Amino acid sequence: MSVASGIEFQMSLLLFVALLGYLLASRINQSAVIGEILVGLLIGPSVLGLITYTDFVQSIAHLGAVILLFVVGLEFKFEEIYKAKYFAIALVGVILPWLGGYLTAGYFGFGFVPSVFVGTALTATSIAITASVLKEMGRLDTLAAKAIIGAAVIDDILGLLALAFTNQIAEGSLNYWSVLLILFKAILFLVGGSLFGNMFLNRKIIEFDSTSLAKKYPEMSFIFTMMLAFLYSMVAEAIGLSAIVGAFIAGVSMGNIKLKHSKDFIEGSDYLHIIFASIFFVSLGIIADLHALNMNVIIFLLVLTIVAVLTKVFGCGLTSKFFGFNSKDSAVIGFGMSPRGEVAMIVALIGLTKGVINQDVYVTLVLMSLLTTIVTPIVLRNWLYRNF
Amino acid sequence: MSVASGIEFQMSLLLFVALLGYLLASRINQSAVIGEILVGLLIGPSVLGLITYTDFVQSIAHLGAVILLFVVGLEFKFEEIYKAKYFAIALVGVILPWLGGYLTAGYFGFGFVPSVFVGTALTATSIAITASVLKEMGRLDTLAAKAIIGAAVIDDILGLLALAFTNQIAEGSLNYWSVLLILFKAILFLVGGSLFGNMFLNRKIIEFDSTSLAKKYPEMSFIFTMMLAFLYSMVAEAIGLSAIVGAFIAGVSMGNIKLKHSKDFIEGSDYLHIIFASIFFVSLGIIADLHALNMNVIIFLLVLTIVAVLTKVFGCGLTSKFFGFNSKDSAVIGFGMSPRGEVAMIVALIGLTKGVINQDVYVTLVLMSLLTTIVTPIVLRNWLYRNF
Repeated sequence: MSVASGIEFQMSLLLFVALLGYLLASRINQSAVIGEILVGLLIGPSVLGLITYTDFVQSIAHLGAVILLFVVGLEFKFEEIYKAKYFAIALVGVILPWLGGYLTAGYFGFGFVPSVFVGTALTATSIAITASVLKEMGRLDTLAAKAIIGAAVIDDILGLLALAFTNQIAEGSLNYWSVLLILFKAILFLVGGSLFGNMFLNRKIIEFDSTSLAKKYPEMSFIFTMMLAFLYSMVAEAIGLSAIVGAFIAGVSMGNIKLKHSKDFIEGSDYLHIIFASIFFVSLGIIADLHALNMNVIIFLLVLTIVAVLTKVFGCGLTSKFFGFNSKDSAVIGFGMSPRGEVAMIVALIGLTKGVINQDVYVTLVLMSLLTTIVTPIVLRNWLYRNF
Repeated sequence: MSVASGIEFQMSLLLFVALLGYLLASRINQSAVIGEILVGLLIGPSVLGLITYTDFVQSIAHLGAVILLFVVGLEFKFEEIYKAKYFAIALVGVILPWLGGYLTAGYFGFGFVPSVFVGTALTATSIAITASVLKEMGRLDTLAAKAIIGAAVIDDILGLLALAFTNQIAEGSLNYWSVLLILFKAILFLVGGSLFGNMFLNRKIIEFDSTSLAKKYPEMSFIFTMMLAFLYSMVAEAIGLSAIVGAFIAGVSMGNIKLKHSKDFIEGSDYLHIIFASIFFVSLGIIADLHALNMNVIIFLLVLTIVAVLTKVFGCGLTSKFFGFNSKDSAVIGFGMSPRGEVAMIVALIGLTKGVINQDVYVTLVLMSLLTTIVTPIVLRNWLYRNF
């Protein structure tokens, strides 16, 4: 069988499953991402076995993860997060969950490397989910919402930094010297990459936009920005960070450009994102094998989920209170920071792909992400915004 | 090395090469497609060897071919081609080139199956290239231009039909009975698929567009249409046609929908097309190995190119004259129908992938397509529209 054969079947099935995910999500009143992962679980080896995690699915899902983080980066605005209090909320909200995850995994008997992965998976808040819940409730303009988004962006970056360390640990090459080195490379890449993008590449793209070449071929800017997204990913991976860190920084570098003659690359990336991020989330369900769930793993999952929520609630909530937010807003911020999403799942996927965590930990992390995401809107909607 | 590793490198390189293709195309005043294939030749094993035709490149290029024909189908309008004279022009303009290609290949000593592939590759006019040349010259509204586009669309369909037969021949399963069967299946699929799409799916998509689900998730229609594109491709391949025939018919079925609440899937497919069709054209250059070009092959190439142009010029031109076009318009139609493009190259690629043609024929067909495409605008611009 040639590589190409079966591609149509896989693509149509993956997209069909994504659509079923939307239907399910709407039925159970959850975000589409949750529906996609759940239906992915259903059609994968866990239940129906209609599709397995083929090389093709893996490649397309990998493209999806890169495009996803690029688009998340595009929505990111520097000026919204340059506040010391957001940074403090994010920092405490990364350290506590990391420790909580690491210690919980250790308590359940997992070794050093898997425990580090669990800790790292617990660090990053899902901006997408939190923002969309607040938007649905018409609360995006509140002080608490701004704090959540600012801190969530910072803790995404901190989470990506933690991932860089985790990568080194997984490869067994972490020591004091390599900690310094990776920190140096990461900061250099984060700062250098985004400055290079913001100062130089942005200007070039805007200059190019008024050339006759851009008028003749309005699609070139879009190809160029996607090329940069993959180039940043490649560089990030080459220096020991993760590909998605690169994609995120590429997005951050390019978020604020408006072009006159060229096709809108922000719109274009969003269309790519619709197709490929859907496939990415479906694939997360496909690769998870529910057969790994025995009673021990289920208990681990429940404890870890509680730890994941409480460490964010106390870490971010108490820090918010310290910085002068009232009790209600502090609680909203704490619960608002609880949902884990794409970063947690990618961390889990990287661990699984590198063979340093097994299906038990992988499934636990994916389901933990799902559970935190399901819990948050319920708490915000039915309890916090009602009782206070 | 995991499958995922290297994907960023390949994607950024392929897109970078596509951009260089645009630059080259603009410099030599040709269409972007030609630039992309030429730079693909340069970076592939033919010259620099920076990238090979990996499984990943093959998968992505295959996606690109499907998306390309889907987008071509979307631009197609039934009512523009329902004219007997266009059908006659197209039919003669398919039969003569097919015979010309088949006989030329036979004369140069190629066997039956490769000769059939050469004949089939000579049938289909590239709508994209012809239309864009006429558009650049501001001649899209002329009678000749309308005849060219109408006939080019029909000869694309006839070419795809010829491809269905060619597929059967390549698999050694062609006899009188199978000719009838494939003709029956092809007509059933072409008519049935486009009617089903036009009558049923279109209505469903429009109905869906006004549901609350579509308002909540405006991206669902786009996912649905892309799913259909791959589903049609899969069905086409399953019944012995080619995947791209399915993608084309899927596009034809869905070209005329305007949605109010959903994201615009026509725009979305166009963005996918920008990235993936570029990669497809670059990959055509990568897979072609110029080392196959010896003196015999070069002579074959030149003769075949002349045959390709003359059979269209006389086949379409004389038929046009017969149907009452004046001499100038008939010549414009004849030369306007000469450029071969995506279909010829996909036919060549299928032959190569199935192992029924070798690099010598593959390279010849790709370069023949390029040459006819380069010749046409020159003739139209510098000679026909100047002298008459």
